[in-house]
Formats: sequence, structure tokens, C-alpha cells
Amino acid sequence: MTNFEPSDVHFEFRVRSSFDQQGIMKTIGAKLTKVIPGEVHIEVPFSMALTQQHGYIHAGIITTVVDTACGYAANTLMPVLSEVLTVEYKINFLSPGKGEKIIGIGKVVKPGRTLTVCSGEVRACDKNDEKLIATMQATMMAVVK
Amino acid sequence: MTNFEPSDVHFEFRVRSSFDQQGIMKTIGAKLTKVIPGEVHIEVPFSMALTQQHGYIHAGIITTVVDTACGYAANTLMPVLSEVLTVEYKINFLSPGKGEKIIGIGKVVKPGRTLTVCSGEVRACDKNDEKLIATMQATMMAVVK
Amino acid sequence: MTNFEPSDVHFEFRVRSSFDQQGIMKTIGAKLTKVIPGEVHIEVPFSMALTQQHGYIHAGIITTVVDTACGYAANTLMPVLSEVLTVEYKINFLSPGKGEKIIGIGKVVKPGRTLTVCSGEVRACDKNDEKLIATMQATMMAVVK
Amino acid sequence: MTNFEPSDVHFEFRVRSSFDQQGIMKTIGAKLTKVIPGEVHIEVPFSMALTQQHGYIHAGIITTVVDTACGYAANTLMPVLSEVLTVEYKINFLSPGKGEKIIGIGKVVKPGRTLTVCSGEVRACDKNDEKLIATMQATMMAVVK
Repeated sequence: MTNFEPSDVHFEFRVRSSFDQQGIMKTIGAKLTKVIPGEVHIEVPFSMALTQQHGYIHAGIITTVVDTACGYAANTLMPVLSEVLTVEYKINFLSPGKGEKIIGIGKVVKPGRTLTVCSGEVRACDKNDEKLIATMQATMMAVVK
Repeated sequence: MTNFEPSDVHFEFRVRSSFDQQGIMKTIGAKLTKVIPGEVHIEVPFSMALTQQHGYIHAGIITTVVDTACGYAANTLMPVLSEVLTVEYKINFLSPGKGEKIIGIGKVVKPGRTLTVCSGEVRACDKNDEKLIATMQATMMAVVK
Repeated sequence: MTNFEPSDVHFEFRVRSSFDQQGIMKTIGAKLTKVIPGEVHIEVPFSMALTQQHGYIHAGIITTVVDTACGYAANTLMPVLSEVLTVEYKINFLSPGKGEKIIGIGKVVKPGRTLTVCSGEVRACDKNDEKLIATMQATMMAVVK
Repeated sequence: MTNFEPSDVHFEFRVRSSFDQQGIMKTIGAKLTKVIPGEVHIEVPFSMALTQQHGYIHAGIITTVVDTACGYAANTLMPVLSEVLTVEYKINFLSPGKGEKIIGIGKVVKPGRTLTVCSGEVRACDKNDEKLIATMQATMMAVVK
């Protein structure tokens, strides 16, 4: 909707460097597929290592992906040297996490000096099919290193 | 607070069997340490494979542990053959996920035929120290196989 | 986004009749300004009777308006004779509730036989200015009379 | 659980003065019945002016009461001259809001310089009966005048 103006021109480099330091992103096979001002996409391929008892991707992993996408979406708009912490989020699960991969999309709703509010969604992809499987509303906080 | 009466005497067997089918619980090294009517505890040792960019356990993994504890807490009170799905949850992060292990504790607040409301908390343990690091409020749904 | 097909052609009559039975809607001066399949708008004029300590509309009243809009948005898609109950919601406050009136907008994200997930937003209007002041994510439940 | 030490000895005076400036508290007939460090209780008598379509107290009013209790609970621990704003909350509704009155109880879970996390509950009272009807998890923010 809104076009955001990043205050740090190197926002993408900063987000990608931080992402690369996350042990969990390697563990779940996550890739950062889009980093633009106020919006970040992360993809995770299906794996039996990520499942709940029915063989679908666990709600907590769906959450991990979109939490990270929302956090970095907030981070794209923060000043140089700022890092981001998750204050809290709420997520609704709409459909099972099945298919070839899931995509977590985080978008800034309202940026702020201290707090940034984001909305997130997760889609499950199978061949050419994409289905909305979860929606998130999150509060992120800027911390200066 | 409340003492709950399980309708299925084999509730613990049912919860443990389901837990053992979760690929993600193996991946993160989780152990089911307590299963009583209306309450479940899950422990996960610290590992660099679970971290965010500062070397602490990722918010999404903290969530995964307490979501699972809340879901199985709800499941202990459900009828024979019932399974549990997460409808939604909200979680606040209070302190970093650091230390030797984290413990996710799920408790039933209000059981119901269709929906069960749970509260969860996560504690980080280091030697003899225990610290509250997150609190959750969750809605779980019973589904009959 | 999505076009929804109501199963009850008299959905608007049903929503308006229910709305008229709410004592609180009269108390806060609320008007139902839009009722289409999957979407409902409710307006409330500013009044000192609705304020918090700084003279802005109280967060709880902002919530009341958008909760009702989300509930009726869900109700538009429910079968004949169904009523709606709020299971839970989460709301973020982005800006103060000031101006001439607020508008609560509820939209269905995912309809379901038992549970319907909605997203809501509240805008504060002053002359020709409209500002997003809150966003909600809600779970509604159909109950048959 | 925890005993909190208020930094402002006049915390009760500050909370009561602010409460008295809320137009909405008069409108719904709310009374501040307990103000101790980290905990606040607010009571509202049943009235047809506060109802939803079934004649029970509207979910939004239940929310208004416990939001205010949580906000002031946070405020009891804030420094002199601090005011409190609601960042966000999530609430689950467990039972209908019926009876003679409702009591909203807000408690601090984790106080902080900027953000304070609270938990809230609402009980409906009828004669000598008390029933838990809602639980809240909220994030409050200190703002200096």
C-alpha cells in the first residue's frame, strides 16, 4: 500500500547479514527471497524435519518464518546500526502447512521510532497453487547496538 | 489452580504417541517432561542450530515449544480419539532465550467441547536459575479422527 | 480482495436486526454504514462520554466498534438463523482516537463452518482526513439459535 | 506472585486522578476498587446500556474494563509524571458477561522502562458466585508528560 523511504540506504545488506547469522534459518533451510523497504519474503521448502504429528509443517515453524519476515520488514526502515527485537505477535492458522514450500511475507503497517507494527501472512505453495495458511499481527522494537 | 478430570484415562499415552510423530520435536531436541491432566511441560536444550542473530534461541522456536505444550495440555482433556489443532495464539517475549535449556509449560484455562483456551509460559534455565522469558495465550480445537 | 457468496440472501436484514438489539451501540451512538458480504462498517461520532484521560476515544471503545464490525462481517456469510460470538481478538493501537468520528471496518479473511477469521481496522476522520488508528485480527464463531 | 516496589509513592493518587478524567468510565459506571503496586481492580455493574444482542455485557465493554485495569496496573510502577498508553492486547472470551457486575483485574507480569507486559482477567459476579469470563495479555507503554 504505502511506499516507505528507508533512512539507511544499506538496509538490504544489513538485513541479509543479520539473516545469515541466524542458526535457525540454516536449520530449517530458509532463504531470503525479497528485501524491499517495508517488506520481506522468506521461503522454506517442505521437510519431514519440520512437521507436526500429521506430517504438515508445524505451526511453530510457520510462525518462525513469518516472525522473521516481519522483524526484517521492520528493520528495513530503521536507522543505521539499529537491530530489531520481537516484542509480541498473534497468529491465526487457516489451513494446513502442506505442499512444496511455504512463503512468509512480512509488511510494515506503521513504522515508528521505538515500535513498528507489522502484518504478516504465510502461503503454502504446491506446483502453481498458492494458498493463504496463516496471518500474523506483530509488534517489533528497534534497539541500537 | 483447577483440577481437571480427563475423560480418556489413556491421555498420557495418546499425547506421547502424537509427540513422537512430530518431526520438528526431534529436530529441536525436545523432550516431554510432564503430562498431567490440563498441563504439559516440554524441554529443549540450548543449541546454536536454534538461534537468532545474537546467539539466543529464536522467538519462533520459543513459540514452537510452548505452542506444542499448550496443544497437548488441551489434548489431555479431550475425549478418546480426539486430536488437537492450533487455532491461534499470541505471545509476548520478556527476556532473551539464553541459558542451558528452555522449558515450555502449557496449562488449560478453560476446556471446551470444541475450543479449549490455554495459557503458556516459557522459562530459560541456567544452572539453578529459572527466568520467565515468554507468556502465551492460545486457542486450541478438538478434531475427531 | 475476495468476493464472498452469502448463503443467506437476507444477511443484511439479519445483521441490522441484531445490531439494533445491542444496547451498547445506542449508548455510543454507533451507526451501521455498510453491510456487504464479508464486510461491515460501523461509525461512531466523537463524544466526551467515550474518552480516556487525554480526551481521546478510549482504546476499549475503538475495540468495541471494530469487534462488532468484524463479528457482523463474519455473520454476513453464515447460514440462516446463525448468530455470531467473539472467540478472541488482538488489536494494535497506532494513533490516538481523535477527530470527528471513527469508522470500524471488519472484513472476513477466511470463512468457516464453525470459525471465521476476520481482520479489522479503525480509521479516525477529521474533515477530509482519514487516518488508520488501529488494526485487529479476530476469531468469530457461528452458533445456531 | 511477585511483590513490586513502586518508584512513585503517590502512585495511587496518580492512578485515581487519571481514572477520574476518563469520560468512558463514568459512562459505563466503573469504579476503581483496588490500586496496589502492580495490580488494579475495576468494577462495572450490569446495565442494559452495555449489552450486545443477547442482553449480555458486550465483549468490547468487557475489554474496556480489563484494558483500563491493565493500563493502570502498569502505571502504578512507572516513575513520577509518567502516563500509560495501550500498545496492544489480545483477549479470549470464555463465558457470557452476565450477572450483577463484572470485575476487571489487571496485573503486571513484567515491568519495564518503556514497555510493561500485563495479564488481565474478568470475572462476572452474581450473588456469591464468581466466574472467569475473559483473559487478556497486554503490552503497555510509559510516556513522560
